[in-house]
Parts: sequence; structure tokens; C-alpha cells
Amino acid sequence: MLFNKISVVDDSFSLRRDMYLVTNGSRIEYIGKEKPLNYEGEVYNGENKVVLPGFVNNHCHVPMTLLRGYGEGLPLHRWLTEKMFPFEAKLTGEDIYWGSLLGIAEMVKSGVVSFTDMYFEIELMAQAVSESGIKVNLSHGLSYNSKKPSIFELQGYKDTERMLDIASRDKTGKLKIDIGLHAEYTSRESLVREVAHYARERNLIVHTHLSETQGEHDNCKLKYGKTPAEYFAECGLFDQPTTAAHCVWVEDSDIEIIKSKGVVPVHCPSSNMKLGSGFAPIKQMIEAGIPVTIGTDGASSNNNLNMVEEIYLAAMINKGSTQDPEFMYPAQLLKLATINGARAQGREDCGSIKVGNKADLVVFDMDKPHLQPVFDELANILYSGQSDDICMTMIDGQIVYKDGEFKTIDIEKVMHKAVGIKERILSELV
Amino acid sequence: MLFNKISVVDDSFSLRRDMYLVTNGSRIEYIGKEKPLNYEGEVYNGENKVVLPGFVNNHCHVPMTLLRGYGEGLPLHRWLTEKMFPFEAKLTGEDIYWGSLLGIAEMVKSGVVSFTDMYFEIELMAQAVSESGIKVNLSHGLSYNSKKPSIFELQGYKDTERMLDIASRDKTGKLKIDIGLHAEYTSRESLVREVAHYARERNLIVHTHLSETQGEHDNCKLKYGKTPAEYFAECGLFDQPTTAAHCVWVEDSDIEIIKSKGVVPVHCPSSNMKLGSGFAPIKQMIEAGIPVTIGTDGASSNNNLNMVEEIYLAAMINKGSTQDPEFMYPAQLLKLATINGARAQGREDCGSIKVGNKADLVVFDMDKPHLQPVFDELANILYSGQSDDICMTMIDGQIVYKDGEFKTIDIEKVMHKAVGIKERILSELV
Repeated sequence: MLFNKISVVDDSFSLRRDMYLVTNGSRIEYIGKEKPLNYEGEVYNGENKVVLPGFVNNHCHVPMTLLRGYGEGLPLHRWLTEKMFPFEAKLTGEDIYWGSLLGIAEMVKSGVVSFTDMYFEIELMAQAVSESGIKVNLSHGLSYNSKKPSIFELQGYKDTERMLDIASRDKTGKLKIDIGLHAEYTSRESLVREVAHYARERNLIVHTHLSETQGEHDNCKLKYGKTPAEYFAECGLFDQPTTAAHCVWVEDSDIEIIKSKGVVPVHCPSSNMKLGSGFAPIKQMIEAGIPVTIGTDGASSNNNLNMVEEIYLAAMINKGSTQDPEFMYPAQLLKLATINGARAQGREDCGSIKVGNKADLVVFDMDKPHLQPVFDELANILYSGQSDDICMTMIDGQIVYKDGEFKTIDIEKVMHKAVGIKERILSELV
Repeated sequence: MLFNKISVVDDSFSLRRDMYLVTNGSRIEYIGKEKPLNYEGEVYNGENKVVLPGFVNNHCHVPMTLLRGYGEGLPLHRWLTEKMFPFEAKLTGEDIYWGSLLGIAEMVKSGVVSFTDMYFEIELMAQAVSESGIKVNLSHGLSYNSKKPSIFELQGYKDTERMLDIASRDKTGKLKIDIGLHAEYTSRESLVREVAHYARERNLIVHTHLSETQGEHDNCKLKYGKTPAEYFAECGLFDQPTTAAHCVWVEDSDIEIIKSKGVVPVHCPSSNMKLGSGFAPIKQMIEAGIPVTIGTDGASSNNNLNMVEEIYLAAMINKGSTQDPEFMYPAQLLKLATINGARAQGREDCGSIKVGNKADLVVFDMDKPHLQPVFDELANILYSGQSDDICMTMIDGQIVYKDGEFKTIDIEKVMHKAVGIKERILSELV
């Protein structure tokens, strides 16, 4: 496809106006001021449009889209024990397939081209992912089970092994399998060490939750005399590249560990705000040179998977909590949501717009009242833009969403299925 | 108009499903479970729709929509002196008219039916307001001028007097004139006392900025040995109903003054976050029984006038900063943005959906991927909804926005004018 006279955010995250951009198959073939000669494919009118690198949502539990707004207003413990766990226990593999498609639809509509997820029944999640065209780093989150104390007895281990085999045959490279360890408070040292060993043996990225709440962080210190980051590091978990969601309560010494071990924190502002978890020290981590990423978390806590909103919230709460209006300037903010995310997923040819990279593109339509006048395109998009301003999401050169239409997802059917699942489970829970 | 089988947020801010709601002229005539007999007017299909009371944006500088994103990334003082002030000095009355229309378009698209504004050239603002169909409490913000030390010499006083006369002849009741005092740091005690006296004499609502930044708050204490709230109270400013924007740095004793004097704080989360001003003690004020309201502030600092986003941000940052996920539950949050706002504007027959009230209605379309499934309509709307989910905004019974179309504003012309103004002023400033 030839994007004609479009504004492009280039790989230095600067805006270049009136450009020509050509995709060929799954990759970007040309970017330049000169119109390519003899081009014969499809042409896209880029007038009043800005193309950004596609967004990477680095922490999600996509099937939980089915639980959006369920148990709203309850305190955390009651919400989990009375609402989330009983509902999740009723989810079938098929439910998880449909829930994944619903969440993926919301993501591609908000410009997400790739996401990192932790849940269960990941083979059915992978099926939804494959049909939708999105990319994923998928993991089954392991937690300690006293009846199955060894990693090799856990369903998550078996799922991971089976999925690694399936992913090795995925010629698109879209499906990647990580090893998930749910969190410190749901594991034991033996399991953490086994996961660390397994990750090294199979050379996997680790996905975990780290110091999300004050209670979790403080309890770990009481139990072990160590912070969760110290504990994980000593168990060898961070010897492999690790994606660590939240990092709200990390301390100065934890930030040093994160930096030295190359752990990638995922900032989840909506979830941290909505659940009252607190403010992660994002500025401190970024100033330490840590490549922070952004994630929506699941829709049960967020309550949406709108990455445009998540990026906006990341800017707002970090400018506010640091009282530094110059922090999270547009190019800085955009890197968190694109190239940092792609790197964390181990995707070296994604995350920025340059020749040879995968054609992961999000197009914003600037012809909207709330995006005019334009002094600074990126500021308008990031601070005033909405997911509905996205008129195209392209993943590996394939248009998955355009002008309000999903090209790979039968959205009416998916929404109908989601309502049916909700009604069935509510009736079972009565 | 008859809304058929629609979900209604009633005047106790509870949701009632499958209702019939009839508007007649500017007011709500009927709400009930039974379909009204012999109704012969227009019928609106309310299936999968939820109707909320229209939103009130209690603090804005709407013509500043023309400055959206201008001077982005500069520190506050340079941003003001090098960018805002020189640009504003070039604005003509006609510019202000077009800038107002642009901002009003953005507001009605995000469900705003009424706003409170402080700027200059307010007669031309009132013209834009009148044409658009929105309601406004308008004020010309007075500040101290050493060459014109008395209130009676100030243009803002003359404007206020002229506009009070015009408003007295407005049969719709939509146009109300407040007296604006810009802020403590831009005034002198003599002016504050004169404004207070004038407000009492003319029985006007006062609109001001209060303790927005730490610098402003601390400097006032250095100058007078009093906080801005104490100083204003002692000058008699709070003897009239007062709308006080921001209130970020108010202290416990200020909250007592605000409570006892009936001052209404306007929470402006986007602006306070974006400029790094800080977190207003909203929970403390609400728990003290103070009817807090919500405002977008101007688009130069926000950078938009999207009230749906503002409400969302108010929920998120206050749950996060108090670490209380149960605070800002949907009905509580919605009251801040509706009935509290209407009361602050002195509009007793607005702000909630009940028979006899003005038909100020916002309709959300729930048939969207990110609003499904539905366990709790209000949670989905407030925590996951977007301004683009609004399919109708009705003000005093008049549809001003429906299904993406502005019914009272020529949006293409307005956007074109805004671009022209930007280009003219930039060329003048070179």
C-alpha cells in the first residue's frame, strides 16, 4: 500500500510531513519525500492523517474482558473472592476464545498491534489471536499448588510446552510464548527457582506481577526480609529478560536491580488508579535509563483495553504526581507505548516506522474538532486524541481495522457471544 | 420527543431500565414504565441506549481552544510569557467568537449542556453560545490594573454591566452572567473588596481561581499571612455564592471556610495533572459535605474540552491518590458532573432527570465492543465509555448533536476559521 502525502512519526520519533510510505507484504519498503515511481498497488490518501508506530500493550489478561464492570464498587478482597474467582471458575475454553476476541477488537480499535498476556487456556487464546491478525506474547501464569508442588505437574507448564511447539511452527512470527509466574505472593521459593531454571533452559521471556500493592510488597519483606524484586533476583528469575507488571511499590534498591538485570517494568496507570494501588515511580525509573512500557491490565480492573486512554493517563498522572509538566513529553511518551514495548517482547523489527521493519501502523485522522487547530500534531494526538480518531490499524501489512470496521473479527457475533456467556454464568452462579 | 424503552438515570442517580421518557418543549414531561397513550410526536428508539443528565462543565476558558497544544513542553512561566500572552494579545473579537464555537462543538459532542466560563470579549462569546444552543454562566475575569485601580474603570466591569442587561432580556434563561475575579495573585485588596461589594449589590455568582499552584498559595501567605481562601473570605468575596476553580492547595482551615461559606470548588483534573499543579483534596472536601463540581479548564492547558474524559480522570486520580477504590463510585461521580454543577450555576431546574426539569439529556449507545458485556451500565459508561459513544446531546429539549452531526454549528466552517486564525496570528508573531 502507498500512503500518499501523510505525516509520519519516524524512527527518531519526530514528525515528518507530506511523506510517501510504501508497505510491501508484512514490511515497510519505502519512506520518503519523493513519490515512488511506477507504484501500482493500492493508494491511501494521507491528507490530514498522521501515521504512528502501532501500540504495544505490555500487560493484559484479555479474556477478562468478559468480566468488565462485574462486582463494581466492592473492596478488593470481596471483589476477588466473591466475584472474580467464582466467575472465572465457570469460564470454559470456548468462553475464553470469545472473550479474547472481544478484548482484541477493543485493542485494535485503539491502535494496539501487539500485546503481552497472562491467563489460562492459552491455546484457545492463541486461536483467537491468530484469527484476528494481532501479535501476542502469551503466557500461562503459574502459581504454587500444594497438591502439585513441582512445575512439571502444573497445567501451565504443560500448556507452555505445547504452545512452544505450536509457536515454533508459526511462520508469521506473530505468536511468541513467554513463561508466566503469576506473582511472589502466589508462589513458593521452590517454584520460583524452577521457573527461573526452566526459563533459562528454554531461553524464554518471563512475565510476572511485581510489587503491585503495598500489602504484597510489605508482606514479602515480612516473610523473607526481602522485597519481591530482591527475592526474585536471588531466585534467578531475572537472569532471563523479564516483563514485570505494575512495579508500584518498588524501592530505590529495587530500581537498581531492575536496571542492572534488564527487567522491563509495565506501567498500568488505569489499573493502579482504579484499584487504588498507588503511583509507580515511573520518572525515577525512566531517569535511571530503564525502558518502561505501558499496559492496560485486564478489563475487570481497568475497565477497558483502550490503549489511547492508557497512554493519556500515563502522561497525566506522571506529570501530576511529579509536579513536572515537562515530563512525559510526546516523543518520550510514545516510545513507552511502541518501541519499548516491542523490545520487551523480543521483537527487534517492530516498534518504530523505518524501512525493513514490520508494517505495524496506526493512522490518526486529524480532521476532528478536538484535534484542531494543529500547532503540534503529536501533542494533539496524545493529549487530546481519542481511540475513535484512529481510522486504520495495520499489523504486519494487514489492515485489521479501518474506518470503524473490523476486517478480521465478526464483531456482532463476538458481542452476542459475550452477552450469552455473561447470562449463562450469572444464572449458574445464582 | 418520546424515548422508547430506554434506560434512564433517574433523579436519585439510579438506573431504571425499559422506561418511557417524553420531552415537551424545553422540559421533561413524563418518565414511566407505561408507554404514554396517544403520543403523536417524534419517537426515539432507546434500545441499548442509556440516557444521563447532561454534563455541566464548571470551569472553562472556551476561546482558548484556539491555543490547543501551542507552546507544548515549555515550563509554565515561559509558556505563559512567550506563548500564551503574546498569542492572546492578537485575538480579535471575531477570533473569540470562532474559538468559542470550536470549543462548544467539542463540549456538546462530549455531553456538555452547560458551562461556566471566564474570558474577555464575552459579548461575542455569548453570541456563539446563543447560536449553538448551549447554556452558559459567563464572566469577564477582572484583574488589577494600576492605571485603572477602581473596578468601575475596568473593561470587565463595563462588559459585565452590559451583559447583565442583555441576559435580563434572554427569555430562554440559558445565558447567565457571573462576576469574574481572576485570582488572588492578579488582584489587590481594594479590587477584591470592590468586586465583593458589587457582587452583593447585583446578587451575582462569583467565579474565581483559588489555590491552583503551590507557588500562588504560598506567596499569598507570605504577602498577607493568610491563605487565598482566608484572604478572599475576609474581603467579603465569599458572601455571595462562589465558584472556585482548582482548590489544589487548600488547607484544612480553608476547607472549613469553603464549607461554611458555601463556596463550590471546581475540580479540574486534566489541567492540574498536565501543568503539574498537584492533587486537590477532593475526597476530604466531599466527605465534609462540599458539593464539588468538575471542569475542563481551557484547551491550552488540558488539551481538550472532553467532559467524558474529564469525569473519567476525576475518578481515576482520586481513587489512586486516596488509595480508595470505592471512592468516586459511579453515582457519586456522576453527581459532581451534573446536579452539583447545575446548582453551582444557580439552575435549580437542571442537573437531573425528573418531570418538570429542563430536558438536558445525554444518550450513550451501549452497542460498542468496549461497553460489553454489561453488568453495570453506569460503571461501563463512566469507566470505559468515550465521548464518541454519545449518540445524542439535547439541551432544553433541542437536539444539538446527534449521531456524529452538529445540528446548530457549521463545524466545517468553524474548523476552517480556526486554522485561518492560527495561521494569521503565527505570521503576525514572527
